[in-house]
Amino acid sequence: MKTITLLTDFGLKDPYVGIMKGVIFSTFPDVRIVDITHEVDPQDVREGAFLVEEYYRYFEKGTIHIAVVDPTVGSNRKPVVFSKDGYLFVGPDNGLFTLLYNDNVQVYAIDNRRYMGKEISPTFHGRDIFSPAAAYLASGVHPSMFGSAVQDHVRIPGLYPVIEQGVLKGEVVRFDRFGNAITNISGTVIQDFAEGRAITITLRDMSFSTLNRSYYEDEFTCLIGSSGYLEFGLFMGSLKEKMDLKKGDPITIVVRLQ
Amino acid sequence: MKTITLLTDFGLKDPYVGIMKGVIFSTFPDVRIVDITHEVDPQDVREGAFLVEEYYRYFEKGTIHIAVVDPTVGSNRKPVVFSKDGYLFVGPDNGLFTLLYNDNVQVYAIDNRRYMGKEISPTFHGRDIFSPAAAYLASGVHPSMFGSAVQDHVRIPGLYPVIEQGVLKGEVVRFDRFGNAITNISGTVIQDFAEGRAITITLRDMSFSTLNRSYYEDEFTCLIGSSGYLEFGLFMGSLKEKMDLKKGDPITIVVRLQ
Amino acid sequence: MKTITLLTDFGLKDPYVGIMKGVIFSTFPDVRIVDITHEVDPQDVREGAFLVEEYYRYFEKGTIHIAVVDPTVGSNRKPVVFSKDGYLFVGPDNGLFTLLYNDNVQVYAIDNRRYMGKEISPTFHGRDIFSPAAAYLASGVHPSMFGSAVQDHVRIPGLYPVIEQGVLKGEVVRFDRFGNAITNISGTVIQDFAEGRAITITLRDMSFSTLNRSYYEDEFTCLIGSSGYLEFGLFMGSLKEKMDLKKGDPITIVVRLQ
Repeated sequence: MKTITLLTDFGLKDPYVGIMKGVIFSTFPDVRIVDITHEVDPQDVREGAFLVEEYYRYFEKGTIHIAVVDPTVGSNRKPVVFSKDGYLFVGPDNGLFTLLYNDNVQVYAIDNRRYMGKEISPTFHGRDIFSPAAAYLASGVHPSMFGSAVQDHVRIPGLYPVIEQGVLKGEVVRFDRFGNAITNISGTVIQDFAEGRAITITLRDMSFSTLNRSYYEDEFTCLIGSSGYLEFGLFMGSLKEKMDLKKGDPITIVVRLQ
Repeated sequence: MKTITLLTDFGLKDPYVGIMKGVIFSTFPDVRIVDITHEVDPQDVREGAFLVEEYYRYFEKGTIHIAVVDPTVGSNRKPVVFSKDGYLFVGPDNGLFTLLYNDNVQVYAIDNRRYMGKEISPTFHGRDIFSPAAAYLASGVHPSMFGSAVQDHVRIPGLYPVIEQGVLKGEVVRFDRFGNAITNISGTVIQDFAEGRAITITLRDMSFSTLNRSYYEDEFTCLIGSSGYLEFGLFMGSLKEKMDLKKGDPITIVVRLQ
Repeated sequence: MKTITLLTDFGLKDPYVGIMKGVIFSTFPDVRIVDITHEVDPQDVREGAFLVEEYYRYFEKGTIHIAVVDPTVGSNRKPVVFSKDGYLFVGPDNGLFTLLYNDNVQVYAIDNRRYMGKEISPTFHGRDIFSPAAAYLASGVHPSMFGSAVQDHVRIPGLYPVIEQGVLKGEVVRFDRFGNAITNISGTVIQDFAEGRAITITLRDMSFSTLNRSYYEDEFTCLIGSSGYLEFGLFMGSLKEKMDLKKGDPITIVVRLQ
């Protein structure tokens, strides 16, 4: 039995997610569905892009990942399917898959009417296009059957950290439930930048000269989180609230002269 | 394998929904359970009534829909089961099913002790009555086995829009996660009212002379949403917050003289 | 097919719960997973302890309950497994299981590297230790295979009500979604204390001389809730907000002289 996962910004108050599941099971019942989150900040494609890259690899190969953060639903942005690393992805081509797209990924538009719902609402492609597509993928339909190959798929600029004048610069991209601030700077990027030299990591007026391993080690912590990215936390409290942090707050890392 | 869906106002903070699932699987394991929402505004039977009518049809025939918004649990309001359009419904008879009840629907009280839990708490019929009933329905027990036929099932008045002195009048009945305001005026009602003539739709000091198709088309939009009902939205923002809208805010539609 | 349940304080905004499910299904696919809640107040082990004791018994025997409220993840607090009443439990040994531990429970540390994930992050044992452990338990691995027996497992003090100078004293331990205040005083404790005599129950400046049966019976109610514990409610409103109640607010019960 294949797994279909769902990431959306639909929230859990409305019946939209339940309706998507109804459509999936009605189209192809022999799957299981796993919710990743439906609490992506409304219409924040950028936040969604980082999340999608984080969870997909923890599922069995063959898993179909639906991701829908789709402020321009109903416009000419394309619904797409593609496969990568043995996983299948379904969603809008609006930059949500920026961190997954690379030269080896072949993206297909979903334009074959046969694999859509009976009626296509201009406001709810989650129900009418993405859920049926995922169900058909689970039933064995190949991505190339859904429509024409897409060459100019959409990537959001500015997702990656940069090095300017010897400073590694990134930013806060999301907050977790505990108020930890998660950045776009991966542990690997830090290692490559530092080359074994001592570094100083700065967020606002707070500087760290070492990485912690766990949150309980100090009041304020700075560590490579479970997602592989640099994050900042406050033990038994919310760093976001304590420091009034915002998405986009800059992080700088410099090599420290001893 | 049959599907059982759950709609409640229990929220997701408490273990109540998980307990209902435990009871269902303990009673009849060969089902799958789909959450619709548990975030119906607390004790808002009216909001629940609109939701139930929206999602049920997207599931496979034979699906059992449990809906529990039940402020008077433990009173003499009846727990009921009924079937409609090939679907089965379980919940309190307090008006929650108003939009599903019609002359062809035969409603049965759940009063056969055999199909309830071992002990019946006066405050948690979701666990002790509705979950076991749904599990027994999934196992093949016919609605009529649960108890006596109910003739005077409860309907909430005032759910439908009205036409007064040539004005079609409805109201905001709920908000979705994006802050879109969803009304009780269906697209069909508007079509029947307009008869092809131009109309003006008014919410507060905001008037629309055309229906949009999608949210991205304008800053303020007015469209027939994916549920089939008239709704109002703000692109990349929350109309609810922007205009401080409330449930019950009136909508008027008039035919426009050209 | 066995059931694995999940209780955490991870919230539903982040992908952590979805990732745990991916790990479970990747390790042993032939299970179903039921969410209890992920909204335990962040890092509130005490609240988690009361919840775990409430839901576990409603599932089929053999169900595996994962519970993770784990502020000191990465420290030397032990990950553990144990069985009780035919159920299996997995989580951190930090007091979360206080109300389940008793003299007959044999607790095992999870220290056998074979039953963990490939890499062990110091911040996300839910993914790297608890989820794999639950999947291996579901596949038939016996608790004793996971590691050494733990003799000094951790219990939180002060969870139970006390009797001092003839007064039964307890406190509010959590609030449900409706704003009802749930205490640590069980109906059984009250019965044993009262021995059939009339009692007066006091919360702040509010006293009750009888227990209600249901919330709808009065504006302010005091009853033995579905969990078996004393709770206080406000009909069609939130008592928590109305009285600005806090966790830890004291409850007293005295025998009334007639």
